[in-house]
Amino acid sequence: MTSSILALDFGGTKLAAAVITIGEHQLRSHRRVLSPPNASATTDLEIVRTLKRELQLEQIAAIGVSFGGPVDAITGTVHLSHHVPGWENVPLADILAAEFNVPVSVDNDANVAAMGEHRFGAGKGFSNLLYITVSTGVGGGWILGDRPWRGTEGMAGEIGHIVVDPTGPLCLCGKRGCLERLASGRYIAQQVQEQLQQQPERGKILRTLGANIESITAVEVSQAAAKGDDLAEEALQKAAWALGVAIGNAANLINPQRFVLGGGVTKAGESFWAEIQRVARETALPEVHFDIVPAMLGDEAPLWGAIALAEDAIAQI
Amino acid sequence: MTSSILALDFGGTKLAAAVITIGEHQLRSHRRVLSPPNASATTDLEIVRTLKRELQLEQIAAIGVSFGGPVDAITGTVHLSHHVPGWENVPLADILAAEFNVPVSVDNDANVAAMGEHRFGAGKGFSNLLYITVSTGVGGGWILGDRPWRGTEGMAGEIGHIVVDPTGPLCLCGKRGCLERLASGRYIAQQVQEQLQQQPERGKILRTLGANIESITAVEVSQAAAKGDDLAEEALQKAAWALGVAIGNAANLINPQRFVLGGGVTKAGESFWAEIQRVARETALPEVHFDIVPAMLGDEAPLWGAIALAEDAIAQI
Repeated sequence: MTSSILALDFGGTKLAAAVITIGEHQLRSHRRVLSPPNASATTDLEIVRTLKRELQLEQIAAIGVSFGGPVDAITGTVHLSHHVPGWENVPLADILAAEFNVPVSVDNDANVAAMGEHRFGAGKGFSNLLYITVSTGVGGGWILGDRPWRGTEGMAGEIGHIVVDPTGPLCLCGKRGCLERLASGRYIAQQVQEQLQQQPERGKILRTLGANIESITAVEVSQAAAKGDDLAEEALQKAAWALGVAIGNAANLINPQRFVLGGGVTKAGESFWAEIQRVARETALPEVHFDIVPAMLGDEAPLWGAIALAEDAIAQI
Repeated sequence: MTSSILALDFGGTKLAAAVITIGEHQLRSHRRVLSPPNASATTDLEIVRTLKRELQLEQIAAIGVSFGGPVDAITGTVHLSHHVPGWENVPLADILAAEFNVPVSVDNDANVAAMGEHRFGAGKGFSNLLYITVSTGVGGGWILGDRPWRGTEGMAGEIGHIVVDPTGPLCLCGKRGCLERLASGRYIAQQVQEQLQQQPERGKILRTLGANIESITAVEVSQAAAKGDDLAEEALQKAAWALGVAIGNAANLINPQRFVLGGGVTKAGESFWAEIQRVARETALPEVHFDIVPAMLGDEAPLWGAIALAEDAIAQI
């Protein structure tokens, strides 16, 4: 009987499970569900158990887990979830190991997605890379020397909270001009909403998209920019500029070969990408070389990374 | 007969050699000379040969070399020196290996100084650290997982050219608001000189130090600040602010345990250090912990690091 890997993704608003046969790099089966409105750690765990049953696994050799929130990757303990209550200090690896009697490896979604892109996606063949997700927030995960670099306390990769413009707008974290404040979907939407209120003569295309200004999303800002909306284009160019500065600075500090960019905001089109490339190149020293490419695995990067985590757990037995 | 390590420091304006008995961590003997005014790669090499003869080495097991300029650490080839002509693409490790018939390891001074502080100085016992030298320029070297992290092309640690304030003054590298532009001795001196010209009512203590405004150095700016000079204090607080932002950003990105700061500018006193600590703490996320301490080995950090390089070369045999 062939042995399998179970990959789990606790994504906050969604949960997913997949199974692969060890050594084969395609999903044998795969389930994904949205979290219920009143989700808790208990319901999340129960949903994942149901998904696992539906996958009809016969023999699992290891489990890899991506978790959407801070995790102690050494012990596999979840510190908390930013979306779902009840996840405070939950020993998730221990719970799953006791239940399935196999090695379990858990890490936060940015680190796990970095592993997924490195082993199966846009980072394949690159030993040193930074994966950056630009979505509701901005996060990152390093691969250095072909292995995840988590830092002393598992906090490495927090590129969302490096200061890009100390004279910039105030971020929720209390600082001014963080990358996340300038480039995340949440803040792009918020800023465009404010500008639409204040500047009634601008954003004509944007105004045709949403039912009302207060509900405009970053996805709609991207769509409007693609159609030539001035205000939407301006907001995205500013986000791209901030990403370019952050990437150029990270290149000077660590000298990776590649930056892999994923998340909804990075689908904003060619002029967005061109601005990131231009500013990153100008910010890095001429002797520091790198490229910047789109992620390949999309929303499935954490699930693929969880497979990589499980493969590593097996290799360590 | 006991075997020895030869450590060499090609410092640009000075050259040094030292010898230790393997396993003992004190310098058995030690020579240091200034480069002649018309120095070249050839005279530098000849001076180092003379220093080595004066040290009366009987048996060398390995040579470690710190070089003040970009180096390919894999091959031990010097790319160039910023101070001395003739160092373009010189295979320094090969030259010394052929001459002395022992393993030779060469790296740039920032990486080597980081190794010195890590193994023998302020970084002892810390697996993950960034060494920053704030002198004429600003440079850095990483230790990650107890080993030097040089990056894909040996360019990691270039913290001097991360952008700290995109609206700041223009740096020689073409960008605005690099850390080096805001915090290096060269630029601190230049800026203070300009302000003394433009603001005749300020800098009373500074004006008593130099023979003339054009020759005021960063060291004199530090001295004047210690005596309460308003203009000098302002310049150093701005440099400290820039260092704090850069350190906080590096902490968020890589999560090291410790930052070790060396170089002449870091001797500027308590209020300078307090500002670095304050701004770095504010810039890093609350969950990211680290400390910032002064380097312990001073100008000898590269020489001690060269010993560490040679020790590693012996361990790899």
